[in-house]
Amino acid sequence: MTHKIRYGGDYNPEQWPREVWDEDHRLFTRAGIDTLTVGVFTWSLTQPAPDTYDFTTLDRILDLAADEGRRVCLATGTAAVPPWLARRHPEVNRTDFEGRRHRHGQRHAFCPTSPVYREHATAMASRLAERYAHHPALLAWHINNEYGGSCYCELCAGAFREWLRDRHGTLDALNDAWCTTFWSHRYTSWDQAEPPNALTEHWRGPDHTAFQGITLDYLRFTTDALLGCFLAEKEVIRAHDPDTPVTTNFMGLFRPLDYHRWAPHLDFASWDNYPALDAPPTRPALAHDLMRGLKDGAPFWLMEQTPSTTACRDVNPLRRPGELRLATFQAIAHGADATLYFQLRASRGACEKYHGAVIGHAGRDDTRVFREVASLGRELEALGERTLGARTPARTALLFDWDSWWALEISDGPSRLVKYPDVVHAYYRAAREAGADVDVIPQSADLTPYDVVLAPVLHMVKGDLARRLEAVAARGGTVLTTFLSGRVDEHDRAFLTDVPGPLAPLMGIRVDEWDARPPEFTQTVPELGARARLVFEIVLPRGAEPVAGYGTDFYAGTPAVTRHPFGDGEAWYVATALDQPGTAQVVRRILTRHDLLGPYADQPAVETASRVAPDGTRLLFLLNHATEPAHLTALGTATDLLTGKRMDEGEPLVLDPLGVAILQWIRRPRSSGTPDARKK
Amino acid sequence: MTHKIRYGGDYNPEQWPREVWDEDHRLFTRAGIDTLTVGVFTWSLTQPAPDTYDFTTLDRILDLAADEGRRVCLATGTAAVPPWLARRHPEVNRTDFEGRRHRHGQRHAFCPTSPVYREHATAMASRLAERYAHHPALLAWHINNEYGGSCYCELCAGAFREWLRDRHGTLDALNDAWCTTFWSHRYTSWDQAEPPNALTEHWRGPDHTAFQGITLDYLRFTTDALLGCFLAEKEVIRAHDPDTPVTTNFMGLFRPLDYHRWAPHLDFASWDNYPALDAPPTRPALAHDLMRGLKDGAPFWLMEQTPSTTACRDVNPLRRPGELRLATFQAIAHGADATLYFQLRASRGACEKYHGAVIGHAGRDDTRVFREVASLGRELEALGERTLGARTPARTALLFDWDSWWALEISDGPSRLVKYPDVVHAYYRAAREAGADVDVIPQSADLTPYDVVLAPVLHMVKGDLARRLEAVAARGGTVLTTFLSGRVDEHDRAFLTDVPGPLAPLMGIRVDEWDARPPEFTQTVPELGARARLVFEIVLPRGAEPVAGYGTDFYAGTPAVTRHPFGDGEAWYVATALDQPGTAQVVRRILTRHDLLGPYADQPAVETASRVAPDGTRLLFLLNHATEPAHLTALGTATDLLTGKRMDEGEPLVLDPLGVAILQWIRRPRSSGTPDARKK
Amino acid sequence: MTHKIRYGGDYNPEQWPREVWDEDHRLFTRAGIDTLTVGVFTWSLTQPAPDTYDFTTLDRILDLAADEGRRVCLATGTAAVPPWLARRHPEVNRTDFEGRRHRHGQRHAFCPTSPVYREHATAMASRLAERYAHHPALLAWHINNEYGGSCYCELCAGAFREWLRDRHGTLDALNDAWCTTFWSHRYTSWDQAEPPNALTEHWRGPDHTAFQGITLDYLRFTTDALLGCFLAEKEVIRAHDPDTPVTTNFMGLFRPLDYHRWAPHLDFASWDNYPALDAPPTRPALAHDLMRGLKDGAPFWLMEQTPSTTACRDVNPLRRPGELRLATFQAIAHGADATLYFQLRASRGACEKYHGAVIGHAGRDDTRVFREVASLGRELEALGERTLGARTPARTALLFDWDSWWALEISDGPSRLVKYPDVVHAYYRAAREAGADVDVIPQSADLTPYDVVLAPVLHMVKGDLARRLEAVAARGGTVLTTFLSGRVDEHDRAFLTDVPGPLAPLMGIRVDEWDARPPEFTQTVPELGARARLVFEIVLPRGAEPVAGYGTDFYAGTPAVTRHPFGDGEAWYVATALDQPGTAQVVRRILTRHDLLGPYADQPAVETASRVAPDGTRLLFLLNHATEPAHLTALGTATDLLTGKRMDEGEPLVLDPLGVAILQWIRRPRSSGTPDARKK
Repeated sequence: MTHKIRYGGDYNPEQWPREVWDEDHRLFTRAGIDTLTVGVFTWSLTQPAPDTYDFTTLDRILDLAADEGRRVCLATGTAAVPPWLARRHPEVNRTDFEGRRHRHGQRHAFCPTSPVYREHATAMASRLAERYAHHPALLAWHINNEYGGSCYCELCAGAFREWLRDRHGTLDALNDAWCTTFWSHRYTSWDQAEPPNALTEHWRGPDHTAFQGITLDYLRFTTDALLGCFLAEKEVIRAHDPDTPVTTNFMGLFRPLDYHRWAPHLDFASWDNYPALDAPPTRPALAHDLMRGLKDGAPFWLMEQTPSTTACRDVNPLRRPGELRLATFQAIAHGADATLYFQLRASRGACEKYHGAVIGHAGRDDTRVFREVASLGRELEALGERTLGARTPARTALLFDWDSWWALEISDGPSRLVKYPDVVHAYYRAAREAGADVDVIPQSADLTPYDVVLAPVLHMVKGDLARRLEAVAARGGTVLTTFLSGRVDEHDRAFLTDVPGPLAPLMGIRVDEWDARPPEFTQTVPELGARARLVFEIVLPRGAEPVAGYGTDFYAGTPAVTRHPFGDGEAWYVATALDQPGTAQVVRRILTRHDLLGPYADQPAVETASRVAPDGTRLLFLLNHATEPAHLTALGTATDLLTGKRMDEGEPLVLDPLGVAILQWIRRPRSSGTPDARKK
Repeated sequence: MTHKIRYGGDYNPEQWPREVWDEDHRLFTRAGIDTLTVGVFTWSLTQPAPDTYDFTTLDRILDLAADEGRRVCLATGTAAVPPWLARRHPEVNRTDFEGRRHRHGQRHAFCPTSPVYREHATAMASRLAERYAHHPALLAWHINNEYGGSCYCELCAGAFREWLRDRHGTLDALNDAWCTTFWSHRYTSWDQAEPPNALTEHWRGPDHTAFQGITLDYLRFTTDALLGCFLAEKEVIRAHDPDTPVTTNFMGLFRPLDYHRWAPHLDFASWDNYPALDAPPTRPALAHDLMRGLKDGAPFWLMEQTPSTTACRDVNPLRRPGELRLATFQAIAHGADATLYFQLRASRGACEKYHGAVIGHAGRDDTRVFREVASLGRELEALGERTLGARTPARTALLFDWDSWWALEISDGPSRLVKYPDVVHAYYRAAREAGADVDVIPQSADLTPYDVVLAPVLHMVKGDLARRLEAVAARGGTVLTTFLSGRVDEHDRAFLTDVPGPLAPLMGIRVDEWDARPPEFTQTVPELGARARLVFEIVLPRGAEPVAGYGTDFYAGTPAVTRHPFGDGEAWYVATALDQPGTAQVVRRILTRHDLLGPYADQPAVETASRVAPDGTRLLFLLNHATEPAHLTALGTATDLLTGKRMDEGEPLVLDPLGVAILQWIRRPRSSGTPDARKK
Repeated sequence: MTHKIRYGGDYNPEQWPREVWDEDHRLFTRAGIDTLTVGVFTWSLTQPAPDTYDFTTLDRILDLAADEGRRVCLATGTAAVPPWLARRHPEVNRTDFEGRRHRHGQRHAFCPTSPVYREHATAMASRLAERYAHHPALLAWHINNEYGGSCYCELCAGAFREWLRDRHGTLDALNDAWCTTFWSHRYTSWDQAEPPNALTEHWRGPDHTAFQGITLDYLRFTTDALLGCFLAEKEVIRAHDPDTPVTTNFMGLFRPLDYHRWAPHLDFASWDNYPALDAPPTRPALAHDLMRGLKDGAPFWLMEQTPSTTACRDVNPLRRPGELRLATFQAIAHGADATLYFQLRASRGACEKYHGAVIGHAGRDDTRVFREVASLGRELEALGERTLGARTPARTALLFDWDSWWALEISDGPSRLVKYPDVVHAYYRAAREAGADVDVIPQSADLTPYDVVLAPVLHMVKGDLARRLEAVAARGGTVLTTFLSGRVDEHDRAFLTDVPGPLAPLMGIRVDEWDARPPEFTQTVPELGARARLVFEIVLPRGAEPVAGYGTDFYAGTPAVTRHPFGDGEAWYVATALDQPGTAQVVRRILTRHDLLGPYADQPAVETASRVAPDGTRLLFLLNHATEPAHLTALGTATDLLTGKRMDEGEPLVLDPLGVAILQWIRRPRSSGTPDARKK
C-alpha cells in the first residue's frame, strides 16, 4: 500500500477557488505531504438535489492529486446531510435526548435508523465507489466521519424493540434481564419498551437512569445502529471495489460507541487524536494502544491531529515547538503507519476557521508551524518503510471494556465520581512509566500471550472471562483487578454471591461493604506511603494476603491491597482508588516479578516503546516528554534511525528536550537489568 | 396495634424466586424483624392488563408472613404505573416543568388530575382492600409512595382553573390576589390562567417566577391535587376496611408538598429518613419533630432508613458502626413507634441495587450490617412497649410554615441565598442543643401550651396569627421572629404598612430598608461575639430595646437583635442571619428566662429528649452524637431501660461513643438547675 | 422641552386605589419630582378585550398629573401582551431558543414578526397617540419597554429568509457568505435556511454555533425585526402627533440588540442603568458614553435607576448613603438631561415588589431613601438648566461595535474566555481614570474630530474602516487596537491575508500564531511590570517597534505591545489581555503624547468630566468615588454650581466622600500641566 509512513491530512479545496489548488500542491511538496483526505463534507456539493449528482469538483481534486503523485483517502461524506434532504425528509434528523426533533444543522445529525437516510447515504457511497474505485489516486475509503451520538425518534424506538426481541427472545427474558419487577416495569408487550431518555428513565442527563439495564441496552443498540450505517455503505463500496481498504475514523476513548463491536468490520483502524490541554502523554498513548488493540495489534492510521491548535474548546492552547514532532513519533511508536492532520489548509468560515492548519489563511510557508510540518515530512521520508507493519511485543495486557465503562458510570451508587477511563489510565500509566509495553485489549481477547493482565474497574464480568483470568494466574501469570470489579452480569444485575462475584475465587477475598467519600477526602495507605480516594471497599481476606492496609477510620488496618497466590501465579486486588504513586508501586511489584520493568523505568518522562518489524528487526522508540534533556546510557549496540548515528553499549545516550530516538538494535541488551544499574 | 416498637422494612420478594423467601424469614427471625412493607411497586405484577388482576404472588407473600408471625404494612402500589397503562393512556404520564409530556419511565410519573389514572389507581386500591382487609398479617395501609412532583398538562391546567375559581371566587378577586395589573396580566376569563412553568412565568427553574402569587397557588394546587389522589384511594379502602390505619410515607422537610394540609387525613404519620452526608444530628431531629407535629404530637413511624448506604447520591457514604443504632434511637426519642428499613433484601438490578439492605446480594447473616441490625432488633425486643405511645412534653414551639417556605424562596429580592430550612434549623438546633424539647407545629396550631414560640423567617403572616403570637407574649411567654418575617399576606402581597407588617406591634420595631450581600461577606455583631450574613435589615426601634448591634458599615450600631417587653412577656427580633453561636446565644437567653435549658446544655453533642408514656412514666433519652465518651452526672434516680442498670442522683453517667441511654425516672431531679452545677 | 433636569420615574398608580394617588403627588412635590413614566404595562387594562378599549384610568392619571403640574413620558405599553391576546392568538407568543412555543406569561414575550402582534400593538399605539397627542401633561412617547430577546417560530423563520434574500440577493452569495461548503450546508433553496438555535446549529447555548455566519445574521435579523416593531408604532404615533419626541428605553451594553442600527430612529436616547454589584464606576460611565454616542453626543435620558435596591438578582445590595446622588450626577456628567427612577411607588405583588422605590409599601416620607431622593430633587431644582443640552468635548474616541462583540463571543477558538465588554472596558477605564473625556462611537462614525482612537478587540473590520483609521494616524493621531482584531470580514470569514487583516499595514506587524491559556495562567510583560492572560498572539514586527515583550515561554522576548510610526502619527497594537495597570500604562503613554491626561489623573478615584453648554459655558464635573475625602487643588477660577462657592486657582479643593462638584469656569487653567504639580 505504501513505502513510507503516509503523511498528509484533511483537504477541502472545494472551499476555495481552483487557482489556489496549485499553490496547495506546491506547499504539499515542500512539506513532504503525500496523502489527502478528501470529500468528508461534500455531500451537498456532489448531490445538490435528489436526482442530481455532480462530481466535477471531486473529479478535479482527485485528478490533480494523481497528477501531482499524491494519494487520496476518499470519504463518502455522509456525516452531514445536505439541507434539501433534511428539509424534504424531516425524519432523517435526529430526535435528541430531550425528545426534540432537530432540523437541519451542524453535522452528525442523521437518524441512524432512518431508511431514507440510509438509502441516500448508500446511494452516494455506491456512486462514489463506482466512479473512483479504479482512480489512480485512490488509497483508501473513509466512510462517514467520527460516528457518534444517539437518536430517540419513533423509528429508533421501533428499531430498538426489534433489537431487543433479537437479543432477549422473549418478554420474560427481557423482564428478567432488566429486573422490571423493580418499580412496576413489567412489560406485557414489546411496544411498551421506550428508549431511555429525559422523557422516560433519565434525570440529570444520560448518566442518571432508573433502569441501568435499559440504558445499557440502548447504548449497545446505538452502537449497532451506527455500525449498521457503516456496514451498509461498506457493502455498496465492495460491490464496486473489492480491494481498496475501508476504514472510518474513530476517536480513541470515545464512550458512546463500543469500538470492539466495530473492529472486525474495518480493514484497518484509524483515529483522531486531540488530547486534552493538560493530559499526561500516557493519555494519548492509552488511546493509541486501544486503537491498535482493535485489530489485534495491526498498525493503524492517525487520521487526524492538529498541527497547532484546536478550535472547539473553551481554551485552545498552542502546540509548542517540538510537541507536534514528539506526538507524531509517539503515534508511530504505538503503531501508526500513517500520520495525518486536520487540516491542510484552514477553512475560511464557520466553527473551525481558527482550527490549526498546515497552511493558514495567509497561505504562507514561512510560519513556524509550516516549518515544523515540513521538517517532520523530511524526517518521515528519510525513515522510509522501516517502521511499517511493525508490531508491539507486549507481555502485559490491559483489559478495556465498554460495557464496564457504561455500567460503572451509569450506576447509582456507590460513587458518581469514579470515572472508568481515569482508573484505567492510572494503571496503564503505571505500567508504561515503568517501561512495559502494553496491549489494550477487549475482555474477550485471547489472554494466553500475556504474563500480566491488568483489569481495573472491571465492573461487568461476562461469559468465561473469570475462568480465563484464572487460567492466566494458574499458569504463572499475574492478574490485577480493583474495587468495583466483578459486580454485575451482562445485564447489569448484581451477582447473587460475595463481591467480587466470579472474580472472588481468583482474588481470594470477600467484600461485604464499601464506603464512598467526597473528592476532597483522602485515606492513607501507610505501607505504600500513598493516599486513596472516592471508594473504600472493606476486604475480608479469604486466602489472599494483605499487601497494604487502610490507615484510619473504623476499617483501619483492613487490607486496601491484597495478593492471592493462585496456581503458579498471583491475583492482586486493589480495593480503593490509589493515587498515582500508590498505583505505580503496585504495578511495579507485579512487573518486577515477571521481569517486565523497562530499561529506563527510573526515568518516567522517557517513554519507551518496542516494535518488531515484519522482517524481525527490533526497534526501540525513546521519547523524551520533558523539556529538559534526558541523560541515558545505551544498553546495547544500535543505530538511531532518525540520525543514522550508531551507539555502542554503555555509551551515553542524550535525548534532547522533547527529543526522539528510534534505535534499531545491532546487538540487543542481554537482560533488562535493574533500573538503578542503568542510570547514568 | 402492637406490643413493641415495630421493626422491619420494605420487602420485595416478588423480585426473587420463591425458594429465597424462606431464607428471608429465617434471617428476619434472627434479626428480630416483625414488620414487612409489601407491595410498594407491584402494580405491573398484580394487574398485567386492563382487565386482568393477579394476586397470586401477593397472597403468597402475605400468607407466608402470617405463617411466620409477621405483620404487613400493605402498599397500594400506585406510585408507579404499569407500562401498558402509560402506553395505552398517554395522558396518565406527566407533562413536566418544561412542558414536555413524558412517556413511561421511572416512578412518581403519574398526572395527579388524570381521571384515567385515578380510576385505575382506586380500582387497584379497592381490590386490595377487598382482598386483604381481614388478612391476619395486615397491620396498616400504605397508600402510594413518597408523593411528590408536579404536572403541567392541559388536564392539570383545567383542574388548576377550577381550583382557582373555588379559592378566589371571582376574576376580580383573582386579579387582586395576583396583582395582575403588574406586567399587564389582568385576566378577563378563567381560561387565561396558565400553570406557571418554563413556558409561561418562570425562568432559571421553579424558583424564578414573574408572579409569585401564581406560583404559590400552583404549589397549593399541587398539594391538593396529590392529596386528592390519596383521599380517593383511602375512600375505597375504607369501604372495605373501616379500621386498619392508613398512612403514606412522607419525606420530612419536603418542599413540594404542604404536609400540614395532608396531616388530618392520615391515621398516623410516617416518613423516610435519609439525612444528608454531613448533616448535624439536629437535621433529622427537626424532621422527626416536624413529622410528630403533623398529628399533634402523636407517635409516628419511621417508614424508611438505610441500614448502611444510600445509592441515589453522587457520593454514598457508609453508616459507621453504631450510627444506625444511634439514629434509630433518635427516631424513637422523637416519637417513633416503628423503625423500618429500606430495604430488607437488596434488589438485584436497576438504580437501587447498591442501596443498603439488611440482607445483601450474597444473602449473608455474618456481615457487620446484619449483625448491627440483629443486635438492635434484640434491644427493641427487650425494650418492649415501654416507649409506645409516649409523647413529648415540650414547652417550646417552633412554627414551620410551607407557605412561608415557598414565598421566601420564590421571592425576587432581597436575597436568593436565604433558605428557609437553613434558618429554621439554626433556631431549632440552638434550642435542642440547649436541651429544650421542641414541638414543630403549623402556624395555625394552638399556641397556648407553650412558653416560647420561635417563628424564624415567617415570611407570610396569615389570619389571626399575629394576634395569637401577641397573646403568647401577653401572658408572659416569649416570641421570636427574624429578618424577612411579616412581609406578605396569604397571596404574597406586601403588607402596606411598616415591616414586619402585622408583627410590628409585637416586635416594637420598624424596618425601612435592608441590605443583602454575597455569601462570602460577613458582618460583625460585637455584643454576641457573632457574625452575620446574607441579609441585614436596618431596624428602627419603636419600643423595643437593642440587644446587639451591627459592628460595621453605614448602619453600624443599629440593632441586629432587639427585645420588646410586651404584656408579661417579650418579643425578640433578629434582623439578620446570625451564625450558629450567635443564634445559640439568643435562644439560650430566651430559654433561660423560662427555665427551659436542659440538664446537659453544656454538652452540645449529648442530645436529650423527654417523653411521657401513656401511663405517665417519664423517660429521658440521652444520645451521644460524639465519637468520644460523654461524662455526665445523674441528676435523679433512674433505671436505664437498655441496660437495666439503676443509677442514683449524683453518680457518674458515662455514655459510650455514639452511646444511648433511656432513663426511666425513679426519682426525678427537682429542678433543671444550672448547667455548670451538673457537669462532672 | 424643559427648564431643568427632568426628575421622576416609573409610576403605576393603576396598581393601587385612587385615594392613594393624591398622597403620591403630595410626596412627589416634597421630592421635587416633575416627570412620570406612565403606562408601561397597562395594555390588559386599557384593552380588556379585542374590541374594547378603556382609557378611564389612564385619563385620570394624566389629568391628575397635569393638574399637579407634572409631565408624563407616556408608554405605549406593548411590551407585555394581555392574556386574552396570548390565548386567542398563540402565535403572538415566542418560540424560544429550545424550539418551544411559549404560552402567556412574563413580559417581552411577543413574537416580533407576528402580524397579529404588530396589528394589535400598533392599534394600541395609534389610539393612545390619537387620545393624548395634545394632552397638556404629555412630554414624550416611550414605545414598548426594554426591547430584547429572540423568537424562533415559523413566522420568524420565514421573515429571516426574506431578510436573507434582501441582504444577500442570491443563494450563491448566501452560500459564499456563510461558507456553506464547510460541513455540507450548501443551500439550493431559500427555505432550507433555518433559524440557528438548539435544534439546528447550536449546542451549549447561544454562543456555540456551528456556523458563525448564520448566527451573526440571525442576531442582525432580530435587531431589525424588533426595530420593525418600534418603527411600526412610531409611524402610527407620528400620524397623530408629529412633534412630541419619541424614545424607547435601552439597556446600555446590551448584547442582543445592535443599538447603533436603532439610533437614527429615536428622537433622543434613553436607558436604564442597573450596574452590577461590584462594578467599578467606569462600567456605568462606559454605558452612559455609549448611549450618548448613539445620537452623536446629544444628551440622553437616564430612564431608570433604582433609588435603593434591585430585586431581580440573586443578591440585591443596598445603595449606601450618598451613592444614589453620586450615580445621578455621574449620569448628568456624561450627558443625561433627565434622571428618572424605577420606581416611584413600590408594587404590592409579583417579582418586583422588593425592587427599591422612592415611596415604599408603608408610604412614608421619613425613610432614608426618600430623604436622599428629596434632597437630590432640591439640588436639581437649584441647578436648573445650566447643564441642559451640554456636550462633551472629547478628543478621544473608543470604537464600540456590536458585530465585533457578537463575532468574538460566538467564535470557536482561540478562547471563549475573552469577553468583548471586559476588554473594551479595560481600555475605556484606563482612559477615563487618566482623565480623558471619551466618546464611545460606532465604527462607522466620523473619526476626524479625534486625536486618539481606541479600537480594542475589533474582531470584524468592515467597509473602509481600515482606511479611515489609517487617516487618523496619517494626520498625527494615534490608533490602538489589540489581539483578536482584524480577523474577519462582515460575514465572519477570515481575511485571507496576514493577521490583523486590513489593519496590518497600519499596525506594521504580522501575527502567524497565538496561544490561549486557562484563566489562572498569567504571563509576565516585564517592561510594563504587568501581567497578561487568556490569549497571547505571537507578533512579528513588520515596521512596528516593540514597546514591551513577553517574559516567559517559548515566545519570550517577542513583542506583547508594539508601536508603529505611521504618517504623522502612531499605531499601537496590544497582542494580549493586559491587566488593568498594564492597560493603563499603554493608554497613558498615548494620551500623554496628545496632552490628553486629565488634571487629576493621579487621583483615579476622582472622575472628571467636561461639558460645554449650548451657550459655550464650560463645566467640569468632579466625582469622588472613594469613601475618603479627595484633596485636590483648584486649577483655575471657578464656581461650584452645587454650592455656589467660588474657588480661585491654587486653592485647596476638597471633595467629600462620594462628593460631587460642578465647576463652572470663570478663568480656565492654561494647560493641563503634569499630574504631580497639581497634587496637593
